[in-house]
Amino acid sequence: MRIYADNAATTKMSQTAIQAMLPYMETIYGNPSSLHSVGQEAKEALNDARERVAKVLGATAREIYFTSGGSEADNQAIRSAAVLGKRKGKTHIISTAFEHHAVLHTLKKLEKEGFTVTYLDVHANGLVTPEQVAEAITPETCLVTIMFANNEIGTIQPIREIGAVCRKAGVLFHTDAVQAVGHLPINVVEDNIDMLSLSAHKFHGPKGVGVLYAKRGIILTNLIEGGAQERGKRAGTENIPGIMGMTAALEEAVAEMPETAARLTKLRDRLIEGLSEIPHGEVNGDLEHRLPGNVSFCFEGIEGESLLLLLDDKGICASSGSACTSGSLDPSHVLLAIGRPHEVAHGSLRLSLGKDNTAEEVEQIIVSVKEVVEYLRNMSPVWRDLMNGKRQFVIK
Amino acid sequence: MRIYADNAATTKMSQTAIQAMLPYMETIYGNPSSLHSVGQEAKEALNDARERVAKVLGATAREIYFTSGGSEADNQAIRSAAVLGKRKGKTHIISTAFEHHAVLHTLKKLEKEGFTVTYLDVHANGLVTPEQVAEAITPETCLVTIMFANNEIGTIQPIREIGAVCRKAGVLFHTDAVQAVGHLPINVVEDNIDMLSLSAHKFHGPKGVGVLYAKRGIILTNLIEGGAQERGKRAGTENIPGIMGMTAALEEAVAEMPETAARLTKLRDRLIEGLSEIPHGEVNGDLEHRLPGNVSFCFEGIEGESLLLLLDDKGICASSGSACTSGSLDPSHVLLAIGRPHEVAHGSLRLSLGKDNTAEEVEQIIVSVKEVVEYLRNMSPVWRDLMNGKRQFVIK
Repeated sequence: MRIYADNAATTKMSQTAIQAMLPYMETIYGNPSSLHSVGQEAKEALNDARERVAKVLGATAREIYFTSGGSEADNQAIRSAAVLGKRKGKTHIISTAFEHHAVLHTLKKLEKEGFTVTYLDVHANGLVTPEQVAEAITPETCLVTIMFANNEIGTIQPIREIGAVCRKAGVLFHTDAVQAVGHLPINVVEDNIDMLSLSAHKFHGPKGVGVLYAKRGIILTNLIEGGAQERGKRAGTENIPGIMGMTAALEEAVAEMPETAARLTKLRDRLIEGLSEIPHGEVNGDLEHRLPGNVSFCFEGIEGESLLLLLDDKGICASSGSACTSGSLDPSHVLLAIGRPHEVAHGSLRLSLGKDNTAEEVEQIIVSVKEVVEYLRNMSPVWRDLMNGKRQFVIK
Repeated sequence: MRIYADNAATTKMSQTAIQAMLPYMETIYGNPSSLHSVGQEAKEALNDARERVAKVLGATAREIYFTSGGSEADNQAIRSAAVLGKRKGKTHIISTAFEHHAVLHTLKKLEKEGFTVTYLDVHANGLVTPEQVAEAITPETCLVTIMFANNEIGTIQPIREIGAVCRKAGVLFHTDAVQAVGHLPINVVEDNIDMLSLSAHKFHGPKGVGVLYAKRGIILTNLIEGGAQERGKRAGTENIPGIMGMTAALEEAVAEMPETAARLTKLRDRLIEGLSEIPHGEVNGDLEHRLPGNVSFCFEGIEGESLLLLLDDKGICASSGSACTSGSLDPSHVLLAIGRPHEVAHGSLRLSLGKDNTAEEVEQIIVSVKEVVEYLRNMSPVWRDLMNGKRQFVIK
């Protein structure tokens, strides 16, 4: 039996999403830009999908731009705001230190181009406050970009309040909502969001497709030039099967959300309770403002990578941080941002539960993690030093 | 019965491609960046696909970058060459006037950033010569970008010879091979190609996925920043189902190529022969150096758009130019580039045959186009003027 507890990395496609794609792979294969009936059938599907996605987000269809995924949407949102800002002589951006790399690396690039970026402290609990944002805004600020929910530790920011601060100050507000869409209630109008990125494969939709929502009036800058697709802002023949699969998955996730979120929250809390019995381990991030499926721990005296591999041997799929940075030897920038020392951050474990996980699986995970942590500590010279008092525990 | 003769716009997915995708939608759904077994299965598939695509193109796996399609690949290739050129103070680019908009619009953007671009004359036959390229190269030239085969008129450039000229001069050579891959034999080494763009949905693969081939040693510039996917040059979770479908479709297209190309060439020539019986009409582009499935005509005295709509009523799916520009009232830039006057370019028809088309369908197309052209001319005031001698025919 294999237990997949890495739903923040990617999810298994739902049958609803797969079935929504197949007709557009097999029969309705036209190019929406073609004038003939085969093309127009595809175009109708595309228009329908755009309306439906807009409805779920509380947006209008013309505010929805289909992209190849969340990273592209993040890049385009930030790049667009930077272009708009620069035209007005505004070259200051506010973000946090624990954003996804799609945001952070884009910001680093802008810093090389003359922008200044304030990275807000996310505190030990992984949360920023609207007051921090308000204090950081200057007359030069052109963009605030803060993720809806963190991909590693699952903390949920006070997006609506941050959005209100931005709106009051007349500053564009973008949120990377890749981990949030389909898992948390989101309404771009009520939540004061100007731009939002999402990725289909994080809510049981297909890989390779996402959305950038941009409020009416925001003029996007193309990352990809060419044909006039997506109101001229994103060239390339539209990925109709992917878009249809994403749309179906999104509607399904939102319809199931009340039940799934309640169930996952219980499973999550039981998992946190069980893993909290491991000595010298601690949960990462706020317990209350947290994604329903996210469990993140640091265990002293072990290496997260070894933990993952041994858990995998026991049939449990987990992560040490975000999937995007695995393979890197650096500890997670997210865990460093919440103040974990390097040596503690190395011993991290992320378990992200999804709608297919069961209570039995959670119990199995608890047993297995306990076993593996103990096994690894018994082999670890660092652990021996900690036990001998040659090193001091950071986590009591 | 519906006859789909718009395979240059997009193709129907082959069953081989669909079947290659399904396991990665249903079962092997991991994120290739994840260390656990579900992720590693996906990573193995990705590595396998990269090897297989490389093999088909005559490249090595590390030279293959998966993208969201041909437009993205074109943008990244040109942008990368521009960055590399600028570092050496080289800001001159050579292209042609009838490239795809993914190329032309990227070049226009670069012109605004200080680059100069020479657009080579493609002559009445739609072909450039290696000599033209050689003459246009200056010590400031950093890139030659010329499409392998034109998307509207199907003319095939002397790519190998152009590549040799570029290599001799030490200038990077990129080719937009979106219309050529899967339809013509291509080997990036033998054809002296430094960078090549392709799109899966043009050879019966899925939409939303493509490839940028970049010769070893060429340092790409990211369009999308973020995770370390694609050797750090293209962020975003890999679209594994799309990549697997593309790879299968590519292998299938290349395996079938000798038979399909021979059969399509015959159908194409019969279609050209039949449509040539229409008075005051003429084929666009060279007849010899031409994609096996491409038929492109201009008919005087009619509007291409009306022609398409009436053909569609008769069950025939065709195009007036490229799908990407339909909806625009401007005549095709490709037809203008080969010297067609505006009023003639407006009366264009592209029929692009694919592997599913039959000889019977071709005969049906000939009959229907003849009928529709005659019908439209009978209603056309322009045609009346032409017949009355108030206007002069351009096409005898």
